[in-house]
Amino acid sequence: MTCNLSHYIIGIDGGGSGCRAALSDSDGVRIGEATGGAANFTTNPELAIKSVLEAAQEAAKSADIELDTLSHCVAHVGLAGILNASGAARMAAALPFRQVNVTDDRPTSTVGALGTEDGLLAAIGTGAFVAIQKNGAARFFGGWGFQISDHGSGAWLGRAAMERCLNVCDGLEPGSVLSNQVLTEFHNDPVEMVSFAKAAAPSDFAALAPMVIKAGAKSDALGRSIMTEGARFINSCIGKADLGESDIVCLTGGIGPHYAPYLDDRAKSLVRPAKGTALDGALMLAKAASENMECAG
Amino acid sequence: MTCNLSHYIIGIDGGGSGCRAALSDSDGVRIGEATGGAANFTTNPELAIKSVLEAAQEAAKSADIELDTLSHCVAHVGLAGILNASGAARMAAALPFRQVNVTDDRPTSTVGALGTEDGLLAAIGTGAFVAIQKNGAARFFGGWGFQISDHGSGAWLGRAAMERCLNVCDGLEPGSVLSNQVLTEFHNDPVEMVSFAKAAAPSDFAALAPMVIKAGAKSDALGRSIMTEGARFINSCIGKADLGESDIVCLTGGIGPHYAPYLDDRAKSLVRPAKGTALDGALMLAKAASENMECAG
Repeated sequence: MTCNLSHYIIGIDGGGSGCRAALSDSDGVRIGEATGGAANFTTNPELAIKSVLEAAQEAAKSADIELDTLSHCVAHVGLAGILNASGAARMAAALPFRQVNVTDDRPTSTVGALGTEDGLLAAIGTGAFVAIQKNGAARFFGGWGFQISDHGSGAWLGRAAMERCLNVCDGLEPGSVLSNQVLTEFHNDPVEMVSFAKAAAPSDFAALAPMVIKAGAKSDALGRSIMTEGARFINSCIGKADLGESDIVCLTGGIGPHYAPYLDDRAKSLVRPAKGTALDGALMLAKAASENMECAG
Repeated sequence: MTCNLSHYIIGIDGGGSGCRAALSDSDGVRIGEATGGAANFTTNPELAIKSVLEAAQEAAKSADIELDTLSHCVAHVGLAGILNASGAARMAAALPFRQVNVTDDRPTSTVGALGTEDGLLAAIGTGAFVAIQKNGAARFFGGWGFQISDHGSGAWLGRAAMERCLNVCDGLEPGSVLSNQVLTEFHNDPVEMVSFAKAAAPSDFAALAPMVIKAGAKSDALGRSIMTEGARFINSCIGKADLGESDIVCLTGGIGPHYAPYLDDRAKSLVRPAKGTALDGALMLAKAASENMECAG
């Protein structure tokens, strides 16, 4: 049952580096868009709320819509750092929309990339998660953070490269062009590597990932070995996906697409470009919620 | 050429939790011993110097020797956190001994465990390193710290257990008694695991290692798998050691001895108890230096 009271639909995608809002009319025509400040809910909930609100208001302004119209909107907000139901509820309560669903950014990324199709998304940037979507429902793997998860992520690749290079220093495995490159970055000094690693944030480790990716593409033995091990997590998820011939596989994020050559053969042939972004996904989820919404009062 | 001017020999072993000094006469008879404060040189060099000095003085007192006699001593100081030559030189310059060698604690641990015999030491506690000793010279592997090294250490085992348990939560691998135990520690809440991991020091992760060790010993599939993967580093070093039939293998530290069942077959049969501690090793190295010292002035 569709609800004519909801004229507008709003999707919001946010994370540590900023947030984006998109507004569409009830026909799904996008009429406004805006960006806002940092919106990782775990890092800073107050700031996340402020940034999301401002982005929504800016999107309304860009569409020449009165701000109080937002109270008629159906919204979906997908934010990094929404870890549990209480975080989602706190975020939702602070927003002025007629109806709002708040999730982490995995559902929005998945719907954005796969649309309504069945398949698998491997979203691999500094962090990493995989989603399997089937009949409109998604199941998620990984994404629990650098320390105990995110196998194959950019941060994981950089850290793994450093570990393997120390093995080279210790004479435990043969060196390569890649190990020479990485060790040169640290002036061939393991002590400098140790100091770096102790203070390194995931993004610092991830800064080394492009070297590993390039080395792997050039068949450098060490680079290929690290990329193959990084792909193990994705391939393990593919093993759970039971992919059909019409299913699609999307590799997104700064690192994701570079894993294509390392995927299991079956999955390789199913790789397609992502249909859209997490912002597109948020808007699609808001539209779906609007269409499912029962008209009240 | 032995030097009769050096009547006393002193060995010192130190780390973050304290330091120990042992004094012997020129015949190698131990006549004094003492303990002192924290002495990790990287963490706090001034404190390390103070702790080492006090331990040496207390050892002299316990042997009823005048403090200024220390200036005739030949000493070996082995400290955690001595990362390079400049650290060793700074420590040495602050000490009153006639002659002093300052190293990290790997050489002292190795000589302490193996004595003068050829063989391999796997010293596995919260951290981990391996030494191969041959003809009186040692070669070291690992020990570069939790972030990019210390494969198989207690911290590594605990972290690996958490990663594998998240795989169980995600349905990527089957659960076991061990995963139930670990997940119960975190109230079956992955978000609690993530929070713990973000703030955890290596020793916090290492606190989970005994569960893994026990599970491995009871043939829990997950526990055995983690222990087998942890042993990969040690076995890799064993592969480099070219062990002879008369060589010995020592497993020390809180975790080391538990790896015995996971060693390559050849190494398994060579496992012997450590001959002594890092303090014994420091004293042996000081005695050797004294015997090699040329008499001056």
